[in-house]
Amino acid sequence: MIKAYAAKQAKAPLEPFEYDPGPLADDQVEIDVHYCGICHSDLSVIDDEWGLTQYPVVPGHEVVGKIAQVGSRVTGLAVGQVVGLGWHAGYCHTCAQCHSGDENLCADSQPTIIGHHGGFADKVRAQASAVVAIPDGMDLESAGPLFCGGITVFNPLVQFAIEPTDQVAVIGIGGLGHMALQFLHAWGCEVTAFTSSEAKRDEALQLGAHHTLDSRDDGAIEAAAGRFDLIISTVNVKLDWNRYLGTLKPKGRLHFVGATLDPLDLNVFALIMQQRTVSGSPVGSPATIARMLEFAKRHDIKPVVETYPMDKVNDALDRLRSGKAHYRIVLQR
Amino acid sequence: MIKAYAAKQAKAPLEPFEYDPGPLADDQVEIDVHYCGICHSDLSVIDDEWGLTQYPVVPGHEVVGKIAQVGSRVTGLAVGQVVGLGWHAGYCHTCAQCHSGDENLCADSQPTIIGHHGGFADKVRAQASAVVAIPDGMDLESAGPLFCGGITVFNPLVQFAIEPTDQVAVIGIGGLGHMALQFLHAWGCEVTAFTSSEAKRDEALQLGAHHTLDSRDDGAIEAAAGRFDLIISTVNVKLDWNRYLGTLKPKGRLHFVGATLDPLDLNVFALIMQQRTVSGSPVGSPATIARMLEFAKRHDIKPVVETYPMDKVNDALDRLRSGKAHYRIVLQR
Repeated sequence: MIKAYAAKQAKAPLEPFEYDPGPLADDQVEIDVHYCGICHSDLSVIDDEWGLTQYPVVPGHEVVGKIAQVGSRVTGLAVGQVVGLGWHAGYCHTCAQCHSGDENLCADSQPTIIGHHGGFADKVRAQASAVVAIPDGMDLESAGPLFCGGITVFNPLVQFAIEPTDQVAVIGIGGLGHMALQFLHAWGCEVTAFTSSEAKRDEALQLGAHHTLDSRDDGAIEAAAGRFDLIISTVNVKLDWNRYLGTLKPKGRLHFVGATLDPLDLNVFALIMQQRTVSGSPVGSPATIARMLEFAKRHDIKPVVETYPMDKVNDALDRLRSGKAHYRIVLQR
Repeated sequence: MIKAYAAKQAKAPLEPFEYDPGPLADDQVEIDVHYCGICHSDLSVIDDEWGLTQYPVVPGHEVVGKIAQVGSRVTGLAVGQVVGLGWHAGYCHTCAQCHSGDENLCADSQPTIIGHHGGFADKVRAQASAVVAIPDGMDLESAGPLFCGGITVFNPLVQFAIEPTDQVAVIGIGGLGHMALQFLHAWGCEVTAFTSSEAKRDEALQLGAHHTLDSRDDGAIEAAAGRFDLIISTVNVKLDWNRYLGTLKPKGRLHFVGATLDPLDLNVFALIMQQRTVSGSPVGSPATIARMLEFAKRHDIKPVVETYPMDKVNDALDRLRSGKAHYRIVLQR
């Protein structure tokens, strides 16, 4: 039996929940959970915001632990190995996306916490191909959030071949944005944090931003016209996107990793005249996660975390709901 | 004196207009106009739709002719050479865009028909660097529209490295779209024309489309879910863009070369979940125009044109305004 924490219905507190995972499949591994990050999308799934949740739901998709068992056909991973598991716990491996190394875009992928029990538990299972080895020497307590929040902001740098000579800005200095600043600084870019919070200004500079821009300051925004090659938006509120488009260079890109329910209402002339692009992306593939981990280790990039014992999971969820978490929360077993 | 046709005020008919161009600048050439295409943006400038027009305005930015004079510092172009001139009659050659071969994105470029007299005339002048040689053996009567409409739909194939294995669709089979179908067919792509007009269906297939899709047919649109790598929109009316996003593959691109005044109201989840992109672009650089001309010649790609004598320019403009032109109009001197 696996001992987990589950919500039995939308918005319910989590409660202890045991389940029998059955025999380990040939292509699976079972992970002894040591740490598991909490992500905003855990709240979305607990609350059934997307209408996709299957109850009882065991959240947790920023897992760090040691392999406890491997399936009979698993190669390349061994019992005792330190690994992580993110948003996806399996892929189809037969579609064009999987064949192209874009498993994260596989339409038949298995989310770790939808129709599958996640990492708020003593153990979690996943297809071996969705599990990524953690390089020796990484700090394990803070590594979990890299597997969802971290890869979400790292992935665009790989997908769009962002160059160290680029000028990049980040909108929203929170759970995602504070990792984006660190990655971009280490990537060699000139990094600007858009923030309207005086308190976050200094932190943004410490995390790797070279500049901050107050997004409520019309003059400052105007002065930044045509400055950025890339802007990564991590926020989930509607902003005046056309203002931000104006701060992009010709051929610049406004990229969304945070989603708003409101449509983007973009001015098409601003796209056409300067050949600008607007795009979005979800988490990354296993290969990109591995690449991120090596890069994070080399540059000592770490999510800033608050750690709770796993049996205080409801306190931890309340803290995340309060919006005051600084910046990610990790459960420790 | 140069003998031209000009509008003296917004929406006025064109009338004969002579002007003294002064001495030829060191970096300019003067072109004897043989043909000049008429583009929708000529109407926009005559009517001052963009608030940028300087009257009297001599329209015409799809010029084909022979070089009559070259400035003292011009090299690489010679008197008697057959050349074309498009939307831009000059660039700054000092900005990052010019230095990167993206002269078409130069913020200080000189439009041919704004603050400069265009090609509805016996002669037109331009910076030599904005003039592109036409390969021997091309049909000159139909070549003019390549210099604005043609390059507008060809440029994205180069900018975004569209591959011959790609599935591409075109929205709007008109002055721009009918050239897009020809270019894409010759590029090796599988080509689909979105059209709701029965009459245009057969023509689209003749122009190079392998398939047509009735954009009013909900079932057909649903069946095309996830099909296209690229959709090029050439229309200037608001459509249900999120429906079209749904027909893109993961990593697919919805690209605008036609502009609407309405914002795009895009669903950001449709971008994020499948890593899709929305973008726009204007005309191309001189290097891309040259590349297009060689490609058009090799594949016998020609705009379908109706030809009017230049002294019937007002009849030709009325024909274009009627929306019945099939597909581009060219003035002949």
